[in-house]
Amino acid sequence: MPQENNQANNLDRWLDSYADRASTLSVSEVRALFAVVSRPEVVSLAGGMPFVSALPKDLLTKSFNEMMAKRGDLALQYGGGQGDVVLRDQIRDLMALEGISSSVEDLIVTTGSQHGLDLLAGLFLDQGDVVLAEAPSYVGALGIFHHYEAHVEHVFTDDDGISPEALQESIDRLREQKRKIKFLYLVPNFGNPSGVTLSAERRSRVIEICRREHILVIEDNPYGLLYFDQKPPNALRSMDEDGVIYLGSFSKIFAPGFRVGYVLAPPAIRDKMVLANESAILSPSMFSQMLISEYLANCDWEAQIETFRGVYRERRDAALEAMAEYLPNLKTTRPAGGFYLWVTLPEGIDSKAMLPLAVSELVAYTPGTAFFGNGTGQANLRISFSYPTPDNIKLGVRRLANVINRQTELIETFGTKGGNR
Amino acid sequence: MPQENNQANNLDRWLDSYADRASTLSVSEVRALFAVVSRPEVVSLAGGMPFVSALPKDLLTKSFNEMMAKRGDLALQYGGGQGDVVLRDQIRDLMALEGISSSVEDLIVTTGSQHGLDLLAGLFLDQGDVVLAEAPSYVGALGIFHHYEAHVEHVFTDDDGISPEALQESIDRLREQKRKIKFLYLVPNFGNPSGVTLSAERRSRVIEICRREHILVIEDNPYGLLYFDQKPPNALRSMDEDGVIYLGSFSKIFAPGFRVGYVLAPPAIRDKMVLANESAILSPSMFSQMLISEYLANCDWEAQIETFRGVYRERRDAALEAMAEYLPNLKTTRPAGGFYLWVTLPEGIDSKAMLPLAVSELVAYTPGTAFFGNGTGQANLRISFSYPTPDNIKLGVRRLANVINRQTELIETFGTKGGNR
Repeated sequence: MPQENNQANNLDRWLDSYADRASTLSVSEVRALFAVVSRPEVVSLAGGMPFVSALPKDLLTKSFNEMMAKRGDLALQYGGGQGDVVLRDQIRDLMALEGISSSVEDLIVTTGSQHGLDLLAGLFLDQGDVVLAEAPSYVGALGIFHHYEAHVEHVFTDDDGISPEALQESIDRLREQKRKIKFLYLVPNFGNPSGVTLSAERRSRVIEICRREHILVIEDNPYGLLYFDQKPPNALRSMDEDGVIYLGSFSKIFAPGFRVGYVLAPPAIRDKMVLANESAILSPSMFSQMLISEYLANCDWEAQIETFRGVYRERRDAALEAMAEYLPNLKTTRPAGGFYLWVTLPEGIDSKAMLPLAVSELVAYTPGTAFFGNGTGQANLRISFSYPTPDNIKLGVRRLANVINRQTELIETFGTKGGNR
Repeated sequence: MPQENNQANNLDRWLDSYADRASTLSVSEVRALFAVVSRPEVVSLAGGMPFVSALPKDLLTKSFNEMMAKRGDLALQYGGGQGDVVLRDQIRDLMALEGISSSVEDLIVTTGSQHGLDLLAGLFLDQGDVVLAEAPSYVGALGIFHHYEAHVEHVFTDDDGISPEALQESIDRLREQKRKIKFLYLVPNFGNPSGVTLSAERRSRVIEICRREHILVIEDNPYGLLYFDQKPPNALRSMDEDGVIYLGSFSKIFAPGFRVGYVLAPPAIRDKMVLANESAILSPSMFSQMLISEYLANCDWEAQIETFRGVYRERRDAALEAMAEYLPNLKTTRPAGGFYLWVTLPEGIDSKAMLPLAVSELVAYTPGTAFFGNGTGQANLRISFSYPTPDNIKLGVRRLANVINRQTELIETFGTKGGNR
């Protein structure tokens, strides 16, 4: 006899078969934007794509040729679930730039740092568990936490990063409610979407609180080396080896097309992560790993990072100048690195409701709502300056100003609900 | 106050923090073998590594150069969660060779077919759900099902593949026990580890049963194009578009180092898979996808598959000849394609207990226990003939025969427990 197929319907014969967690999957706002971004006449300030054209192609060709000559057969083969040991050794040098001392044994290579976070969420999150996060927080992380049926508790964050007082207060309140807090998730340098950096003084206090309260910290740091002036403070991981899991990525300092990231974790967690990685994908791509390894060995990757810094500094400047020129009354963060500005809209304007109007004016951004797990964020939007040229950034901000100013006029004429029409 | 850290210990400060599913992670027998395989003096008949040296390096160089010239910046960038549309269109031609008609819309590119299966398991398996599988079944699939806390029910399988009668009987019994059967997982062509192929007649009957009983079929087919004489019967997917999810891979017909596989699924399932893929890894590697796409567009990939067939046919022959010469009394499957022989040991010998002895004789294999989720399989072992040269296969089987014969003598002298000492 058929089993429960009364629940199936004409659109989906297998509707009765899904796991509970399948219901957590819905089209994200960021995904819906992909279609918009692809139209050439739209200036997209939405996606967080790195400007890979700044990576000289001959460096790739050189790395490819050397790899094929030296380790071609290995690059084509399956590898171990922890990743190539040569690459892991090189990653240690990269992390040393942020004050982290690490061992090859404690590093795991992952399919982008996104998959590192996915594997960690799978290891730690049962349904109903709580994740503490900045307000706002990275949309891709929120998607993962949601998929594992966890609750995200946003902690007040200002221009110096997450607030230690608010963190302590959240912990106390959640503990009183008998909620299980599994970890604090942070992007401490040039955060996505806020662009803010956690100050050195707050780093110590966050670590102190989390150690005392027995809360694991996940430090996600894809942008840390892309500073425009000063190096940010040392990584949280450098302050507590046993209490911080560090996620790194080659997506922003090399190229995302290879999907190579890495995780530095305490030994017991690392062992479980390697097994979870093997279960999910058998092994990370040896080809991608070895090509990056050759690049690190034979090219001046520090000079290349300096090039990227210059590219993004110029674009950040263009974005801030355009904001000052076209939207002088709007509050925006002033990022000292990374890819993003976080803009606060005039009262009454809803960033999500305004997006279709902006797209009709040929500019796209990411509404603030994407970066909150609790339905808020309407008053903000994220401007990404990493991909468009400085001229296009200015053009985009000018178009955005037109839309915002028209909305403001509407509100002034018809009242505060003008932005939602 | 610290939360539940009474459970933490000196070895793992975070022992109290793991999710329930973390307890499913344990070191697999296949993983433990990686260390053994790497010693050059050991003939490994254990790992299922393809012989990538048979792929001419100049084809890769040509594909790399053309890709960088034509789509270099795209290859370095993030892509969509469903995969590159050009590659998906090319995959359609590959699947047409097995009788499958498909659309670009219904295909999803994954990080190897392993990740395709992992995503599907995440979509369908709640704790305690039942997966039907061949006996024996692919170790990597069993690991995934175990990680999602499902129960694997092995169905009797012989030289013509899974038995339709046994399948019906298992379904009836499980339904009577009110168990939730989520899907049937099959490797119908040159199965791993059995080497057997599901006959055309049984394919129809399996599809008929699963359709009537409302059971989804997952058809995992990495070896289908690697036949030695005749093409295997058409894919199950060609017989029921709405009831079969098809998993394919470039790992065996091109190279595993790129980690590119694909899934063809009914539309509602496909939509959910794309979202799950994006959540887990953002997008599959564009670099890997585009390099394979150039290879398919500009190289004679069908001739290359014919080359692989020749390589593996010669190795299969070497393995069967060595079995006939050194272990003439042992039962073995006679695969018509793929990578594996499945050997039945003399009574009283335990393949898992014998492995250390074999390694001390400088030969490795995979114990049958790896391919069962229920603790059985001691009477069998898997020989993989894909990677070692024909001469080394013969040497390996000769060494294996020494070990087995010595075990048999021990049993004859001291009784049936000799193999377990």
